[in-house]
Amino acid sequence: MTAYAKMTPAERGAEYARLQGAFEGLKARGLKLNMARGKPGKAQLDMVSDIFGLMQRPEDYVSDGIDVRNYGEMRGLPAAQRLFADILGCKAEQVFVGGNASLQLMYDTIAKAYTHGLLHSPRPWCEEETVKWLCPAPGYDRHFKITESFGFTLIAVPMTDGGPDMDAVEEAVKDPAVKGIWCVPKYSNPDGIIYSQETIRRMAALRPAAPDFTVMWDNAYCIHEFEGEYVEFPDILSLCAAAGNPDMVFEFASTSKVTLPGAGISCFACSQANMAHMEKLLTAQVISFDKVNQQRHVLYLKDKAHTLELMRKHAAVMGPKFRCVADALDREVAPLEIASWRRPKGGYFVSLNAMPGTAKRTLALCREAGVTMTGAGATFPYGRDPQDSNIRIAPSLPPVEELEQAMEVFCVCLKMAALEKLGV
Amino acid sequence: MTAYAKMTPAERGAEYARLQGAFEGLKARGLKLNMARGKPGKAQLDMVSDIFGLMQRPEDYVSDGIDVRNYGEMRGLPAAQRLFADILGCKAEQVFVGGNASLQLMYDTIAKAYTHGLLHSPRPWCEEETVKWLCPAPGYDRHFKITESFGFTLIAVPMTDGGPDMDAVEEAVKDPAVKGIWCVPKYSNPDGIIYSQETIRRMAALRPAAPDFTVMWDNAYCIHEFEGEYVEFPDILSLCAAAGNPDMVFEFASTSKVTLPGAGISCFACSQANMAHMEKLLTAQVISFDKVNQQRHVLYLKDKAHTLELMRKHAAVMGPKFRCVADALDREVAPLEIASWRRPKGGYFVSLNAMPGTAKRTLALCREAGVTMTGAGATFPYGRDPQDSNIRIAPSLPPVEELEQAMEVFCVCLKMAALEKLGV
Repeated sequence: MTAYAKMTPAERGAEYARLQGAFEGLKARGLKLNMARGKPGKAQLDMVSDIFGLMQRPEDYVSDGIDVRNYGEMRGLPAAQRLFADILGCKAEQVFVGGNASLQLMYDTIAKAYTHGLLHSPRPWCEEETVKWLCPAPGYDRHFKITESFGFTLIAVPMTDGGPDMDAVEEAVKDPAVKGIWCVPKYSNPDGIIYSQETIRRMAALRPAAPDFTVMWDNAYCIHEFEGEYVEFPDILSLCAAAGNPDMVFEFASTSKVTLPGAGISCFACSQANMAHMEKLLTAQVISFDKVNQQRHVLYLKDKAHTLELMRKHAAVMGPKFRCVADALDREVAPLEIASWRRPKGGYFVSLNAMPGTAKRTLALCREAGVTMTGAGATFPYGRDPQDSNIRIAPSLPPVEELEQAMEVFCVCLKMAALEKLGV
Repeated sequence: MTAYAKMTPAERGAEYARLQGAFEGLKARGLKLNMARGKPGKAQLDMVSDIFGLMQRPEDYVSDGIDVRNYGEMRGLPAAQRLFADILGCKAEQVFVGGNASLQLMYDTIAKAYTHGLLHSPRPWCEEETVKWLCPAPGYDRHFKITESFGFTLIAVPMTDGGPDMDAVEEAVKDPAVKGIWCVPKYSNPDGIIYSQETIRRMAALRPAAPDFTVMWDNAYCIHEFEGEYVEFPDILSLCAAAGNPDMVFEFASTSKVTLPGAGISCFACSQANMAHMEKLLTAQVISFDKVNQQRHVLYLKDKAHTLELMRKHAAVMGPKFRCVADALDREVAPLEIASWRRPKGGYFVSLNAMPGTAKRTLALCREAGVTMTGAGATFPYGRDPQDSNIRIAPSLPPVEELEQAMEVFCVCLKMAALEKLGV
């Protein structure tokens, strides 16, 4: 195979005609495949169904002397705090255990900043002239959406192989209107990058002009390796504290991709001072989160070591799916020099950079052939990819057989879009 | 027994001395009893433990073709929408099923009004000079706290035997700064009043100056009779619609006192136009609530008729507790003419009006003797009862044997406080 750019127009024309034929054949299959979101597949859901059989014995209803079935314990069950602390490497008293979604806890944190202000806010953010927010991009669309929904000005920060471009971040935080940054530090969404030690050190040591600048540290994939061994990761809370920034960070995690998406448990972790401030605000909103489900998870997951065993079973399902994607790209696309991508070892996505100006067209063709992908641009602030290049592939939901077909469609569409761009 | 006011000072002195002796005896028992919150007791929790055994068969994971274990369905499971619609008498498409707490949904509604505005808001409420809010009092402290936490000006509205004083409400809503009202329409917290048909009709037909005036209709005790038959109650959504106010009301309900407090499911119900507006705002915050728990509840509660059967079992536990309270008051306090109260047939509270200026003192004495009650004043805006008179008794948590002791303490303390006030 020859790189498309090096082909003559006639060669490209012939290749395009061949692809058009293939595309029509694929359309005729009447596929209906979805690679849009990081949804676990059925095999992963079935794997954890033992969790439904717990909570049968009266002693299961009691945890540290607390009847988990009744009201109370806003911070969550101490045993659930300990479980998350074990996983994240922080202290149990730094953990607030919530409901089924860490996204809600992130939204709440930003919403409270907006309506009441965070611990070091001079005023609620709704009273600020402008609030600016740093968005390492490509990044997670739902993160960007939260800050967009409150009218913040989103500032894209380039991603490097080691995480957000820290030169850009250090420069940006000199502006007192810049109030925070979104981070997915391990297996970043969508790139699958693990932030380097250097990035993490510089993040913890930031000297922002805003006294209430906040690092939203969404450790969504903290134990989500699907290839190779578990990768240790530093505790951001102690690093921030050591750098003199104890209140600058809120960390988030959940079991959505450990047990059940939408029926797991979530947490945030922060300094004691932040916790006291948030509790004061949350007490108007929350009596308690679902402690029965917290207890179910404590009984099921037990501790970090036992949870990592479960994650290896998830890896056995997820690994082949990611290899299917990477192998298809290596085989079908690599020689053509029309796109680049990484081979992540954890997380839920493959991030592909297509030839600039071809992402939207690629996904429109995919849709035509019955394959739904994350919308083009979704990984950038305001849903606008300035290069129209980044495509997020989410291979977790379809079984491998379907994924193979979906990738066949995707590769054909990617090639067609590239050829159209180069001229056929 | 003679009314205290009709006693001579000497008689009161003797009575007080007698009570002091009794009080010391009670203190010596070293009691630790709690009647502070509307928490169900252990017998009620044990009654529903079958709910933990559900979700065992693969077919239980699927509802209307939806895998309840995965992400999605922000509005909740259609089957859960139907369940709440059946209970509330509204349409399934008017129902949004949430997580474990209707309080969170109420908070969210007010928070969204504050940050973004409701459907008919000219602007977000955070941009309003003043937001005023009507609080029928005595009422629910957590309601008042939500609106207080956003800096609204709380306006107390007197309660009558048929609900909030509608003359006062109709007058108040002429002020365009008045944006809404809290209502617990059936077995109001704490009075246990069922709003009269006339009150409900006038509420639905309000002509508020504010285009975004909102009735927060917290139907917390919609099926919570503990004495006598289930009392039918009108659907506020259709009444508002018929009166030309389709978007004026949000109704709330939960299963916190049907299945498990803090581990049940909740909902709000509103017009289709409100639903579309709220969904647009909620989509930044929520992927989906816990549909596994929704499905668990659908399987367990089935429909309204079956849920009412369960409520009769709760009544068998709750009835004796309320009779214990009312009987103690009838026997010990009624002849003394130092307090008045109702004998509710549902809900979770007995509201007692002590001699003005004696509520705080009564509860301080109770605390001294090891009995914790809802703080004095809690049932009024800002926690300030202008009469220092109202006391909320929550008899649901302690078993009857403990309740009898707690009421013995309470009656002694109430009498001592009254005598101190009258002069001994």
